[in-house]
Amino acid sequence: MSIHCYAAFGAGEPLRPHTYEPENLGPFDVEITITHCGICHSDVHLIDNDWQISAYPLVPGHEIIGTMRAVGSQATRFAVGQRVGVGWQCGSCLECEWCLAGKETCCAKQRATCVGRPGGFAEAVRVDSRFVFAIPEGLASRDAAPLLCAGITVYTPLRSAKPWSRVGVIGIGGLGHMAIQFANAMGCEVTAFSTAADKAEEARRLGAHHFVATRDAAVMMRAVGSLDLLLSTATAKLNWGEWFGLLRPEGTLCIVGASPGTLDIPTMAMILGQKSVRGSVIGNRSAIEEMLRFAALHGITARTEAFPMSEVNMAVDRVRKSQARYRVVLEN
Amino acid sequence: MSIHCYAAFGAGEPLRPHTYEPENLGPFDVEITITHCGICHSDVHLIDNDWQISAYPLVPGHEIIGTMRAVGSQATRFAVGQRVGVGWQCGSCLECEWCLAGKETCCAKQRATCVGRPGGFAEAVRVDSRFVFAIPEGLASRDAAPLLCAGITVYTPLRSAKPWSRVGVIGIGGLGHMAIQFANAMGCEVTAFSTAADKAEEARRLGAHHFVATRDAAVMMRAVGSLDLLLSTATAKLNWGEWFGLLRPEGTLCIVGASPGTLDIPTMAMILGQKSVRGSVIGNRSAIEEMLRFAALHGITARTEAFPMSEVNMAVDRVRKSQARYRVVLEN
Repeated sequence: MSIHCYAAFGAGEPLRPHTYEPENLGPFDVEITITHCGICHSDVHLIDNDWQISAYPLVPGHEIIGTMRAVGSQATRFAVGQRVGVGWQCGSCLECEWCLAGKETCCAKQRATCVGRPGGFAEAVRVDSRFVFAIPEGLASRDAAPLLCAGITVYTPLRSAKPWSRVGVIGIGGLGHMAIQFANAMGCEVTAFSTAADKAEEARRLGAHHFVATRDAAVMMRAVGSLDLLLSTATAKLNWGEWFGLLRPEGTLCIVGASPGTLDIPTMAMILGQKSVRGSVIGNRSAIEEMLRFAALHGITARTEAFPMSEVNMAVDRVRKSQARYRVVLEN
Repeated sequence: MSIHCYAAFGAGEPLRPHTYEPENLGPFDVEITITHCGICHSDVHLIDNDWQISAYPLVPGHEIIGTMRAVGSQATRFAVGQRVGVGWQCGSCLECEWCLAGKETCCAKQRATCVGRPGGFAEAVRVDSRFVFAIPEGLASRDAAPLLCAGITVYTPLRSAKPWSRVGVIGIGGLGHMAIQFANAMGCEVTAFSTAADKAEEARRLGAHHFVATRDAAVMMRAVGSLDLLLSTATAKLNWGEWFGLLRPEGTLCIVGASPGTLDIPTMAMILGQKSVRGSVIGNRSAIEEMLRFAALHGITARTEAFPMSEVNMAVDRVRKSQARYRVVLEN
């Protein structure tokens, strides 16, 4: 049975209604009736072919929540009617050293939900059940959808924080507003950094103990040497050397936002401070399950703006222009 | 009783015989008759005032081994006649959060053995016993002296390796030749990288399983994506982006050599590979004791060239010109 969806037919073009025939339902596959799909900046990058990996027609969408409507013979973890979610990664070889170690995000054969195959801007999606997650009760589907990508992207590096860590979050957007909530729930002392001084109030509501308007040099100066973990969700090129100075000894700068350029951090500052910089991308299946449980326990979801799937172009436009506060979700 | 030593009286000047009156022997202090003192590149940097922190007359030396000749009333860990060592750090506040956590190298009030006070190019030295270490039997003093600085500098980051890690060591010099031995003894698969192709044989003798002549582009290319931990002991500016490419997913580049400049690593390479860069400097007291025990167990010492203390200028010159294979030690 063919699946209705929205697809881009060329780089940067508006999405148009489209229909495709899904692959046969393999023994481990499931088909999910999509109720919600978040829009991530990477969907916009794919539509625009910014990464030179897009093939058209392209059906974006990788923050999927929906209901099981078909379950392959070996997909025994799930039952028809169950509420489930799918994120960025929808497959890996499950055989290599990384997969065996529970590190599917390092697998050389990893597959993405909306790269080279149709994603979640659709009425339904077929995927490998081994990359599908049960959504805990108590999480509203609309606000939980962004957990599957934005949520796990910030949750993974925060797993290395200790409850007593001093955590900074650069940028209060789709990723940052979830990072603040997670870090707060983990017990951390949380400082939110934003160019937008008018986000101070919201940052505190999300769980930040401190707010720093980054354009205020004096306030930034007071934050020097104050953080154990500094998470950058910024997508612009930052002055990394300056941000690095905000770390305490043994501190870590973790970059999850797709900033361009190189790390202009003096090597000597890194050595003398015994500091580190690391990159992180989404998260492994075990971390996603853990994150969903943690989010349900603490009531952590995204602040979302909802659009009907039919208004997908208006919705994508808000994401492209970074106007959403803080995440846009399509609803069927 | 005054102490005879060798001191520089101006930046870059040859050392000359000198005499100073030591501070009173405090309750926690000890006085050590120096039998051996290694020469580290940082001694040359201090003589030359490269770091703009030198005060003259300057008595270098911070890889000290000798015999206890006076013990303060509270220095109860030691007895006169005992063989002991002193490294770069000779003091910290012992009260701050870092000291309480056993992380004295992060203490803001840390003191160095030969900065602002006389070091080990001397017949004796007075230091706080709480930064003095018993030297295990079985380690020859001459070859063990460099453990106190070069040894701990590479041992500290290697502590984060696993026995099954694939470890690369950039540079086969004073630090690198010890890193190869430690990594091998820890069970790691060790690759030595050097611009000097004629060091291949020696690298293998030290414990390297593989040797890469870094000027051979084809051989370097084959090493791409092969290492879990890459330790840089180089003091020149490297093409960090290229070296970063040698890491496997989740790999770490650790910089211990005082390379100038900034980290020209693309942020996206860090994110997608889930990789990290860290800096490390010497090591804490608990790690030094552990390292000395590990070195004694596995017979790990430096390959040294010995000079009588009276030939200190010839010895310093070999270090300044990086001619030593691999470490120079002064003997009284």
